[in-house]
Amino acid sequence: MLDSLFNPVGVAVIGASGKELHIGNRVIKNLLDFGYKGGIYPINPKADEIRGIKAYPSILDVPGQVDVAHMVIPAKFVPMAVEECGKKGVRHIIINSGGFSETGPEGAEIETAFLEKARAYGIRIFGPNCQGIINSDPAVRAYCNFTFTFPEAGHISIVALSGGVAEVIHQGFSAMDVGTRIYASNGNACDISIPEIIRYLADDDGTRVIVTYVEGLKDPLGFFEAAREATAKKPVLAMKAGRTMEGAKAAASHTGGLAREDMATDLIFKKAGIVDFRDEGHLINAAAVFGSQPVPKGNRVGIITNTGGPAVIATDILVDAGLMLPPLSENIKTMLSGKLYPEATVSNPVDVLATGTADHYLACLEAMMADDSFDCVLVNFVTPFFVDTESIARAIAQVNLRQIKPMVCNLMTDRRQWASTVAILKSAGVPCFALPSDAARALGALVRYRRILDRKAGRVRTFGDVDADGARAILSRAAARKILAADQVYALLESYGIDVPDWRMADDIDGALAAAEAIGYPVVVKADAEAVVHKSDMGGVAVNLLDADALKRAVAGMIERIDVPNLRFFVQQYVPGGREVILGAKAEPGVGHLIMFGLGGIFVEVLKDVVFNLTPVTDAEAREMVDGIQACALLDGVRGEKAVDKAALIVLIQRLSRLVTDFPQIKELDLNPVMAFENGAVAVDARIAL
Amino acid sequence: MLDSLFNPVGVAVIGASGKELHIGNRVIKNLLDFGYKGGIYPINPKADEIRGIKAYPSILDVPGQVDVAHMVIPAKFVPMAVEECGKKGVRHIIINSGGFSETGPEGAEIETAFLEKARAYGIRIFGPNCQGIINSDPAVRAYCNFTFTFPEAGHISIVALSGGVAEVIHQGFSAMDVGTRIYASNGNACDISIPEIIRYLADDDGTRVIVTYVEGLKDPLGFFEAAREATAKKPVLAMKAGRTMEGAKAAASHTGGLAREDMATDLIFKKAGIVDFRDEGHLINAAAVFGSQPVPKGNRVGIITNTGGPAVIATDILVDAGLMLPPLSENIKTMLSGKLYPEATVSNPVDVLATGTADHYLACLEAMMADDSFDCVLVNFVTPFFVDTESIARAIAQVNLRQIKPMVCNLMTDRRQWASTVAILKSAGVPCFALPSDAARALGALVRYRRILDRKAGRVRTFGDVDADGARAILSRAAARKILAADQVYALLESYGIDVPDWRMADDIDGALAAAEAIGYPVVVKADAEAVVHKSDMGGVAVNLLDADALKRAVAGMIERIDVPNLRFFVQQYVPGGREVILGAKAEPGVGHLIMFGLGGIFVEVLKDVVFNLTPVTDAEAREMVDGIQACALLDGVRGEKAVDKAALIVLIQRLSRLVTDFPQIKELDLNPVMAFENGAVAVDARIAL
Repeated sequence: MLDSLFNPVGVAVIGASGKELHIGNRVIKNLLDFGYKGGIYPINPKADEIRGIKAYPSILDVPGQVDVAHMVIPAKFVPMAVEECGKKGVRHIIINSGGFSETGPEGAEIETAFLEKARAYGIRIFGPNCQGIINSDPAVRAYCNFTFTFPEAGHISIVALSGGVAEVIHQGFSAMDVGTRIYASNGNACDISIPEIIRYLADDDGTRVIVTYVEGLKDPLGFFEAAREATAKKPVLAMKAGRTMEGAKAAASHTGGLAREDMATDLIFKKAGIVDFRDEGHLINAAAVFGSQPVPKGNRVGIITNTGGPAVIATDILVDAGLMLPPLSENIKTMLSGKLYPEATVSNPVDVLATGTADHYLACLEAMMADDSFDCVLVNFVTPFFVDTESIARAIAQVNLRQIKPMVCNLMTDRRQWASTVAILKSAGVPCFALPSDAARALGALVRYRRILDRKAGRVRTFGDVDADGARAILSRAAARKILAADQVYALLESYGIDVPDWRMADDIDGALAAAEAIGYPVVVKADAEAVVHKSDMGGVAVNLLDADALKRAVAGMIERIDVPNLRFFVQQYVPGGREVILGAKAEPGVGHLIMFGLGGIFVEVLKDVVFNLTPVTDAEAREMVDGIQACALLDGVRGEKAVDKAALIVLIQRLSRLVTDFPQIKELDLNPVMAFENGAVAVDARIAL
Repeated sequence: MLDSLFNPVGVAVIGASGKELHIGNRVIKNLLDFGYKGGIYPINPKADEIRGIKAYPSILDVPGQVDVAHMVIPAKFVPMAVEECGKKGVRHIIINSGGFSETGPEGAEIETAFLEKARAYGIRIFGPNCQGIINSDPAVRAYCNFTFTFPEAGHISIVALSGGVAEVIHQGFSAMDVGTRIYASNGNACDISIPEIIRYLADDDGTRVIVTYVEGLKDPLGFFEAAREATAKKPVLAMKAGRTMEGAKAAASHTGGLAREDMATDLIFKKAGIVDFRDEGHLINAAAVFGSQPVPKGNRVGIITNTGGPAVIATDILVDAGLMLPPLSENIKTMLSGKLYPEATVSNPVDVLATGTADHYLACLEAMMADDSFDCVLVNFVTPFFVDTESIARAIAQVNLRQIKPMVCNLMTDRRQWASTVAILKSAGVPCFALPSDAARALGALVRYRRILDRKAGRVRTFGDVDADGARAILSRAAARKILAADQVYALLESYGIDVPDWRMADDIDGALAAAEAIGYPVVVKADAEAVVHKSDMGGVAVNLLDADALKRAVAGMIERIDVPNLRFFVQQYVPGGREVILGAKAEPGVGHLIMFGLGGIFVEVLKDVVFNLTPVTDAEAREMVDGIQACALLDGVRGEKAVDKAALIVLIQRLSRLVTDFPQIKELDLNPVMAFENGAVAVDARIAL
């Protein structure tokens, strides 16, 4: 579908202008300067030519095929122009102009109007209010964009709504002399979407790496699915910003209160196998490595250096990123024997000394490439005036071209004085950085990608024992309530196989006594009514009631204290001991639910030691959640306590995931606490909001 | 003392060479090329001239004054050459050559030999095995160094042992067109030390910012004192690397086990008021801002942008760094009224739109500079082809030159095409970055410096009630033991006013009974002997013994279980309840002691939620420690519990600091747990190792 957008045989510019500072002129200049291989058709009823190219009064007058028409005209004229493009058989329209939905309802109406026409003619719209696309493929050279950074041909493709950030990334590559394959920034994205473009790039053979930036996802599930398909084919690197802009929403539950506003995007990134970044500089540097280097088999890195301190800095960053620096194997030591200066440090890092020559570098590189004890190499190379730095660069370049294991280079030099040395490395595709931290972090990202590739996604268990019909009936009866009644809550949990203590509902003291008799003492009693929101604060909870007298006093006290209509009493078996944990779910519109797990009590209230994932949670993900809290050692038993049944918690997370997935009307759900025992786990208090 | 090192009237090069690739040639070339204002004296017995400059057979033949002599000769000739320099009256020698203590004992001997001679003549040695110094002062222009990066004149000075990292930082400034004032890299630093150079730079009027890098401190206290003096005069920015290289030492206490190997350096940085960094790129960027901008009064930042996404990224980083983005005041809105495009976003960030002109930028900048609601400004400036970017640059430059409030600029452009725009900003001293994160983080560092300046150092309390003589007597009696006996421990704590439960020592069951009688039940009994290291694990602790029978049984059991010589019994009052906290001290050679505070039990064992500081801990620092643990809310009372006596804990930290400061022979000390109550705090178990 998007093939002719990125590989157009002809490009028209509706609103082409003779004025230098007009976008309708710049796009034509860019197409010309970049060496576009197709037909260029300026559309302007008042001009014979623009920048020396024959202009046409209307798109209908263009003789050749037009795959892409730019529109650089006021918003109000766009619907009519789309109509004309339809008649001409134009396949894609890049609307650079603004004045649409981004400005308010009036603009949104125009957007709806032109979209309707576009659909009628089968035209796809890119934008509006956008920069456009670039394709650096030598056979195409399409610069359908009004920006000013001309990419080298390359293997990294960039896609983002935000033109500003897409361009920052693009400029970052350009400053490093790293090429860009396809660039797409689609502004309002009223038709052609980011997920659609990601799918296209996933199938584009020229694209080795997809880079994207998002502030919020318009269609989170669509993005997730496209990204997951893409990551199965090639690395997708992404950054999300706008983390701190939004305040936390008022929430009716712990889970709601603890879930950060933008958490879903992070979880989507993770679940889709995206390599995510918090800093656009790190993203740019990593992409340069992903675009030129093979993926390492593991996390063992060898460092070759001709200066000490920068290798120390690189080591810190590598270790922080989860890489290991194994010692040199005997095999490598043998390979290096007699090949370095006697004063050289033959360990990891290998210090070949400032006076180290090309032969020294080559010996180290070949040894590390050949020996199985390393997965990747970081070269730390300062350019002293007294050695032949060009030869060293050629040695590094030569090894890199073999693409045996990934390598990066921290090239410490004055890039103006040592331009030819720099050029040798760059032309061989060695990713070169000016700071040891940058080189190390970029290599670290590549190793992170290896871990993502090796990660087991796990499977979504379906649980044949759940009673979905029963649950549906409970929820439809409850539909009028925002907060479910206690009997509804526990019946619902039971229908999905979630263990709860034995319970009964009662309307009064006698009912409560009968319930307790049936359950067996000791019991817990909880006041229940639609108006009772925080039952503990209202004196609506009494635990460990040992006999009828105690129960009677407790219920009588509640009746006295809590003056609300339809007050009932939830009586349940008292379950002492166990380790308190909390589980929860929160609906995330357009995505599903966030599922939360953590330790209860102060761990959730004070330390906020909780982890999240998105529905549907797989078995592997549930295990990762249980093992992912900071205090997870407590689950394994410390200070002589017994370990709790982690397997039961892992199943419980999955049952909860299944429940809220089946019933998306559940807005928030807390199981707090769940008592985890040596065998099994029981939800002793719960709360569900629709 | 160092004045003539950095401002030499004459420089000799002993080992001057006619060979281009020899350091003895390069130093002369660098002095010439950099435009050194003093006399240059090549010393070479076989040459008449080097690089066109008259050479002398010996330093003694030089006619003029020599403040600095380079030595670029084999190590073994250095002592004799130093002797000659002494006769000539040379004041400083920069020994570029290696082959000294860094190579082993033989080299170290030569180092000792030449140092002896140097001291005899009052010569100061810089190096050996070092790069040298640079002074870019237009009146001096001394490039006494064999590297290749020629700095612009500037206000930032760099000092580091590591030539590699000093040069990386230097190159970073050079790549940003930011000047360097003094550069000093002293390698082995056998005489002139980093602290000494820091003191010199602190008094150097041309240095506005001191930048340093360390891997480990040779003289931690000396560094601390020099840095503290310097930070009282100007900002000191520093980075420490080698964090992950060293393994954790085996330790006999919790405090020992939790103290990271390199923690002392971080704490020294903090206590000295250094602005510290973990990434050399962040350090370089921040220094550029510190060197050109005033210090903000507070943390309120205004953003002016002409593109959306990059401002979102900048906001994330600024907020992470503790800055606030207040809304625009009514005053500012009035000032901007009618001055921007109607579609511009008049909030914070202000979006003047891509089409925004110089007048728009100027209006925003002047409003933010004039209005009291902002302390600093971040300008986000992409250079569209359709606006007059040079005018915008001039507007920004003009406001920056007034130095009213600090500003930084994220300049998103192709630096080759927009070179004149870039030049306008740079020549006015506007710190320009290519990425929004970099600009935001550098501004964030400046705000961090404001917080450091505003921090109250507090005072070191002396505690008139301590019994130092009593403590000394206890420790001298204990000197033969590695681990103090219980009676020694508790008597020592009491002598320093640290509350402990009432206690007695007993040799047998009868003694224990008598002790308990005197103390009053319930009691605790603990087995005590030099061979008892982990008393709990050996069944050597019994708590809450309610009567003589229980005590008798407990002691009898210990006698049976624990078969070690000289077993005694420590009987103490049982102190139930309270919140468990842990305090500790660990000797840090050359510094003093690390002092640790945290919550006890699982908080220290599982969550490792502890904080450290260095002796002597001031009252303000002790308060910061108590408030600095993650779970500090627990001390204030949660879930209906009462708050504990934080004031008592703060005093306790200071008493502990005083104790170990007075008695540096204490290697490790744990108070674990201390029971903190609503009133007071009592150390119920303690352990001291000498």
